[in-house]
Amino acid sequence: MRQVVMHAPGDVRVEQRDKPTIVEPTDAIIRVSAACVCGSDLWPWRGIQEVKKPSPMGHEYVGVVEEVGSAVRDIKPGQFVVGSFFASDNTCEICQAGYQSRCIHAEGIGGLGAQAEYLRIPWADGTLVATPELPPADLIPSLLAASDVLGTGWFGAVAAEAGPGKTVAVVGDGAVGLLGVLAARQLGAERIIAMSRHESRQKLARKFGATDIVTERGDDGVARIKDLTGGYGAHSVIEAVGTQESMMQAIRSTRPGGHVGYVGVSHGVELPGMELFFSGVHLHGGPAPVRRFLPGLIELILQREIDPGQVFDLELPLDDAAAGYQAMDERRAIKTLLKL
Amino acid sequence: MRQVVMHAPGDVRVEQRDKPTIVEPTDAIIRVSAACVCGSDLWPWRGIQEVKKPSPMGHEYVGVVEEVGSAVRDIKPGQFVVGSFFASDNTCEICQAGYQSRCIHAEGIGGLGAQAEYLRIPWADGTLVATPELPPADLIPSLLAASDVLGTGWFGAVAAEAGPGKTVAVVGDGAVGLLGVLAARQLGAERIIAMSRHESRQKLARKFGATDIVTERGDDGVARIKDLTGGYGAHSVIEAVGTQESMMQAIRSTRPGGHVGYVGVSHGVELPGMELFFSGVHLHGGPAPVRRFLPGLIELILQREIDPGQVFDLELPLDDAAAGYQAMDERRAIKTLLKL
Repeated sequence: MRQVVMHAPGDVRVEQRDKPTIVEPTDAIIRVSAACVCGSDLWPWRGIQEVKKPSPMGHEYVGVVEEVGSAVRDIKPGQFVVGSFFASDNTCEICQAGYQSRCIHAEGIGGLGAQAEYLRIPWADGTLVATPELPPADLIPSLLAASDVLGTGWFGAVAAEAGPGKTVAVVGDGAVGLLGVLAARQLGAERIIAMSRHESRQKLARKFGATDIVTERGDDGVARIKDLTGGYGAHSVIEAVGTQESMMQAIRSTRPGGHVGYVGVSHGVELPGMELFFSGVHLHGGPAPVRRFLPGLIELILQREIDPGQVFDLELPLDDAAAGYQAMDERRAIKTLLKL
Repeated sequence: MRQVVMHAPGDVRVEQRDKPTIVEPTDAIIRVSAACVCGSDLWPWRGIQEVKKPSPMGHEYVGVVEEVGSAVRDIKPGQFVVGSFFASDNTCEICQAGYQSRCIHAEGIGGLGAQAEYLRIPWADGTLVATPELPPADLIPSLLAASDVLGTGWFGAVAAEAGPGKTVAVVGDGAVGLLGVLAARQLGAERIIAMSRHESRQKLARKFGATDIVTERGDDGVARIKDLTGGYGAHSVIEAVGTQESMMQAIRSTRPGGHVGYVGVSHGVELPGMELFFSGVHLHGGPAPVRRFLPGLIELILQREIDPGQVFDLELPLDDAAAGYQAMDERRAIKTLLKL
């Protein structure tokens, strides 16, 4: 089968690899209908994260079940499924509390490589959610978004306790930040401030429900958020970048007692304890437990109440994956969908 | 009047100073009935925090109102009052959300010096809570505890979301940690693990409701907590020290999705972003908004349902304040009450 493999920063190839097979009785094999390139895939592409050996890429996927292991009870061959970027048993205490990405049996899909024709899914019953029937083709991008960026933006909004009466600020205008805006709107936030200096992203943010746009960054961005919130700061801030600057911008934009939901994968961040202490904010985040939200998100998509697939502004065949990485790296594309 | 003044590390004196007077119409002057020495007073005593000039000490107090400013409506001369270590207007959006220690008009009582015969309280109506009548003398220590250590331990437990069905671990066996145990018990926690290697403190922890004692620290302490919680970690961890080691011990003892409530004043702490991200914990803390909890805590004390005053294991006249600092520094005393 064909699979996307990164050999070195900037060097992504589509190669012939063996089709995966059932390894554990709890596995399923799916035929991938669509995959995509994640902002986090750009860290190794840019050389900020080491590429130690040729690595299969991709952790976002939708597809049709081909085969299931002998211990799989709920997932059946032929079903269309959406899964999280972390496999989870969905039965341990951590899963039951809604933190499936930290399941005691958690396994990253990234290591298996979803940018491929076929994909092995560990803990299929715990990881995958099947749609009632094969979904119409135009909903594929939105269902694919649910598998990571939508689920992650949603978790950011939930962790930031976005809701009625709240002013929510969003740091980061990538796909996750934009879908954080959508989530905050769905959760009933009163006011949603998107922080972005890119016109096309501002436009999409407004479409998803942003009421205000702030173009300033760092200290100036914090000052603008304070200006817009009577000097107090936002109730809720979604951090969707993962750098020192973005984390501090998020913490400083939040009022004492407010909530920071941080979902940008942390790179080189050190939080100063004393400042954090006196900030009085709530801090919660990490790898999103997408599985917690999948059933509800799939329902919203199938009922056409949300259209998160709009974050895909570039669609390419799997064979052109490298061009998809490049377009995102150069910020010509918000997010690249790879069609199979 | 007599007032405790720190001149340099290890150099605390009781001096004659002018009795404070009303400065703002929202002020009150109280005659202090009892004050005490805080763990945070030991930082400058130990030279870890600079003593730039002779500084009035103390921020915990109970007393009787002597005089109020022209704009004070609720607090009356003659009332017995308990207040927080931060003055607050109790009307701004931050106060109304329960974060009075970060009130837009917040003023630290420490700068005024509560270890004295008289004390000026800014924002008297917002800061002070009066008891219905003069309390019996034996309740003074507990009411005094409410003004900081009890309120702070309570906030730690609330921030850690201690409650029914939860296993709560407490890092730190000072007065705040011990009262975190008491708070977790009151909040209905199922299991409370006190981390302490001091026999007298272990004993008090058990009296306050601890079900388990862990004597190990650092990585060994974390391993013990994991052992005691089926490998998952505690649901809730109260951090009541403020060092790098104690913060990391708290974060690592908490299960993914669990809550760390940190109330130890942060000294030299830098939190590694990547580890925090993948920990999946909730982090909340800071200077406790004691005012939020005071009415309820005073009620519990007056009804003799809790006896937090037990943390005072040394009682001295104000004139012997230096001996009280020394006893706490050498860990001969958990907490020193200064009688006036």
